[in-house]
Amino acid sequence: MADEALFQFLHSELIQYIYKSGGSGETENGKRITKLETMGFRVGQGLIERFTKETPRFKDELDIMKFICKDFWTCLFKKQIDNLRTNHQGIYVLQDNSFRLLSQLSAGKQYLEHAPKYLAFTCGLVRGGLSDLGVKSVVTAEVAGMPACKFQVMIQKA
Amino acid sequence: MADEALFQFLHSELIQYIYKSGGSGETENGKRITKLETMGFRVGQGLIERFTKETPRFKDELDIMKFICKDFWTCLFKKQIDNLRTNHQGIYVLQDNSFRLLSQLSAGKQYLEHAPKYLAFTCGLVRGGLSDLGVKSVVTAEVAGMPACKFQVMIQKA
Repeated sequence: MADEALFQFLHSELIQYIYKSGGSGETENGKRITKLETMGFRVGQGLIERFTKETPRFKDELDIMKFICKDFWTCLFKKQIDNLRTNHQGIYVLQDNSFRLLSQLSAGKQYLEHAPKYLAFTCGLVRGGLSDLGVKSVVTAEVAGMPACKFQVMIQKA
Repeated sequence: MADEALFQFLHSELIQYIYKSGGSGETENGKRITKLETMGFRVGQGLIERFTKETPRFKDELDIMKFICKDFWTCLFKKQIDNLRTNHQGIYVLQDNSFRLLSQLSAGKQYLEHAPKYLAFTCGLVRGGLSDLGVKSVVTAEVAGMPACKFQVMIQKA
C-alpha cells in the first residue's frame, strides 16, 4: 500500500508542479498535457525494459496487450484492467472501473474537467511500454464516470 | 522490483524536468534544490500519515528515528538504513551504504557534482515524515563515496 501511495503522491506533486508554472489558456494546457504524457512515455519505456528482461517473447499484438492489462497494470496500480476489448483492427479499449489516480479526486461532476491531467501520464506509460515492445501506438483516455476510465490504444501500423 | 523502478524513473524524470527549465547559476540551482526538497516534504508528510494510521504511538524521538530508518526507508528503498548514529543532543546521522537513487549514477568522481539533486527530494521526504510525527528538523545530505551517503537530521527544539 505504501508503494502505491508513493507513486500517487509523487504523481500528484508532478501535476501540481507542472500546472503551477506558465500561463493559462488552451495552448498552455495542451503543452502541459504533452509534457506529462512524454514523461509517462519515458517511464513506461524504462519500466517495460526492466520488467520484460526475463519474460519470454510475446506471441502477437493481443498477447502484448494482455500483458499490459495484467502484469504492467498490476505493477503500476495493484489491480488489473477490468475489461479489454478490441475491434481486431488495431483498436483496443482498456477499461479500469476504479482507476487509482482518479480515486483521489472526488466523484462529483465538477471535478471532471480536472480528469485529463490525471490521465495524461498514464497514457504515456502505456504508449511508452508498448513502444518498448515494438508496438507504435496513439493512446488517449476518457473518464467513463469517476473513477472509471477507458484508455483507447490505436496501433500505428508501420 | 518494478515498484521501486517506478519510483526511481519518476524521480529522475522530475529532476530532469526541473533542471530543464530556467537559467543556470548558483541561485537558480539553489531554487531547484529547494523545489525538489519541498516536493519531497509534502510526499513524506502524506506517506507517513497513511503509513502510521495503525502504528502505535512512539515512545520518544529515538523511537521515531528508528521507525524512519527501518519501516519508512524499507517502504521507499526496499532496504533499511545501514547505520544510525546520534550525539544524543538532537543530531542524527543516517548512513545508507548503497543509496538507491544514487546507484543510477556512475560511481566515478566526475558525477559527484550531480549528487545533490539526487538527494534533495529524499531530504524532504525525511523532513516531511518527521514533521508529520511532530518532530521539526533540518535535513541535509552528503555523499560519502558513491553510492554511499549520509543524511544528517538536526532536530529543531520548539
